Amino acid sequence: MSETLAPPDALSTALPAAAAEIEAALDTLLPRPEGPEARLFEAMRYASIGGGKRMRGFLVLEGARQFSVSRAAALRVAAAIEILHAYSLVHDDLPAMDDDDLRRGKPTAHRAFDEATAILAGDALQARAFEVLAEEDTHSDPAVRAELVRCLARAAGARGMCGGQMLDMLAEEAEAPLDEPAIGRLQLLKTGRLIEFSAEAGAILGKAPSAQRHALAAYGRDLGAAFQIADDLLDATATAEQTGKRTGKDAEAGKATLVSLLGLERARLQAERLSEQAINHLDSFGERADLLRALAAYTVQRKS
Amino acid sequence: MSETLAPPDALSTALPAAAAEIEAALDTLLPRPEGPEARLFEAMRYASIGGGKRMRGFLVLEGARQFSVSRAAALRVAAAIEILHAYSLVHDDLPAMDDDDLRRGKPTAHRAFDEATAILAGDALQARAFEVLAEEDTHSDPAVRAELVRCLARAAGARGMCGGQMLDMLAEEAEAPLDEPAIGRLQLLKTGRLIEFSAEAGAILGKAPSAQRHALAAYGRDLGAAFQIADDLLDATATAEQTGKRTGKDAEAGKATLVSLLGLERARLQAERLSEQAINHLDSFGERADLLRALAAYTVQRKS
Repeated sequence: MSETLAPPDALSTALPAAAAEIEAALDTLLPRPEGPEARLFEAMRYASIGGGKRMRGFLVLEGARQFSVSRAAALRVAAAIEILHAYSLVHDDLPAMDDDDLRRGKPTAHRAFDEATAILAGDALQARAFEVLAEEDTHSDPAVRAELVRCLARAAGARGMCGGQMLDMLAEEAEAPLDEPAIGRLQLLKTGRLIEFSAEAGAILGKAPSAQRHALAAYGRDLGAAFQIADDLLDATATAEQTGKRTGKDAEAGKATLVSLLGLERARLQAERLSEQAINHLDSFGERADLLRALAAYTVQRKS
Repeated sequence: MSETLAPPDALSTALPAAAAEIEAALDTLLPRPEGPEARLFEAMRYASIGGGKRMRGFLVLEGARQFSVSRAAALRVAAAIEILHAYSLVHDDLPAMDDDDLRRGKPTAHRAFDEATAILAGDALQARAFEVLAEEDTHSDPAVRAELVRCLARAAGARGMCGGQMLDMLAEEAEAPLDEPAIGRLQLLKTGRLIEFSAEAGAILGKAPSAQRHALAAYGRDLGAAFQIADDLLDATATAEQTGKRTGKDAEAGKATLVSLLGLERARLQAERLSEQAINHLDSFGERADLLRALAAYTVQRKS
């Protein structure tokens, strides 16, 4: 496989370049602070712009590249998914949820503003994500727009992110720690579904044949699972300075993760296996998918 | 106008009949409590099913009737709007927002469950509302589905409900009470936009000519404004037993409303004027719009 991998520096150039393009799209798509409700717009921008690796948006852009989708359309969808992701972080950080003070190296939204503003900013970001997808500029074919909305809503809702976060909250109260299948399901819902959709979105935009759409979704599913284990490994081993958020909190909260269940070494091996599996799903794609392959490899090696 | 008004008992039969149909649709469209995250599904159903006059849903059904839209499609859209409305009530009631204990005659979601569950249930309800609209069963034409999503997202987001609630929160902290134009704008955003869209949705479903779509939207805008004043009048004069929620809270919070600004009598007159204006927008519609006319008349006379 190594001969088809992009050189590591291709990804290290492409990822920040894509992030910069996505930042610019977010700046355009989010309302400018003005008028009496400016505080809300400020909080929406604060939570969404200027931070994050934009991995989900990058997946949209690289998925869309496989089918020669216009960059403008792909950027709108990438931004919509990052807007939805930003909303979920704002709400997850709330005092009633994970009660976090630090996110992407700066105070969380409810610390920088206040709780009511953070709740409302999250709510408004969720609505905006769907609005962006439904707007004509996203794609001339309304069937594509409706399908993007349907899939994002599914990934975000009770059988996706919200369900996963509920399981996470319940696990904290539970007497026994979760077992491996329960953790896998929690993570699939909480982070996996949105990463899966991010990888799949380019195929929807490009009206790809269903085999290719499914291959990208399967890539995203395995990448998401690998990413989550890598995230838990970082939480267990890295510092807040490296990650821009509080670390060691899983252990502190007595939270079961695959790392606590399997140990560092076996967890690392499982993440690597998932990353290889993700890459295998791209077999029918040519060199144009090299950055997606490189991302899967990088995901399990990253230090932040 | 009186000869074209439906007899009062037509509305008093039609409104609860529509509410029952919408309840049944909600029961079908919301996930059944099962599996480890059942608590989330329970909270979603608790907040959405079994309560409310379903005025927004009724508007969708009656708007759709003007264009002979299928009842099944209209009911899905009516339910989606009621799901979105339910989410906004759950979040508005939260301790960080209006901190309410009572809603539709029963404990608010965060009192019946807990704060984290209430936040997540609201989030998941918002996602489900968009998902329902985007699903194929809502309309065979994806352009209709995408347009419904776009308009609902607009009514729900930063320039709609979330913006209005932000203004409401800021008004509580402000030193000077809001003046009449500021209150009008707050209410247009907080409740008006969704009522406007509810009245317009049937025209979107029925692919109505734009003049008719605009007439229904204008009807909804005036009806929404009349409804809000009537609501403030009830808050000032009725008991919690009559309304199923805490009353007198505007005065208690020192909150400016059109009632506190204009006094009971002038506020009542303004509501009546708006109600008549709403009815006038229906001039190009025939007898089929009689229930919409009756609703506008009823809105300013209701006691609960």
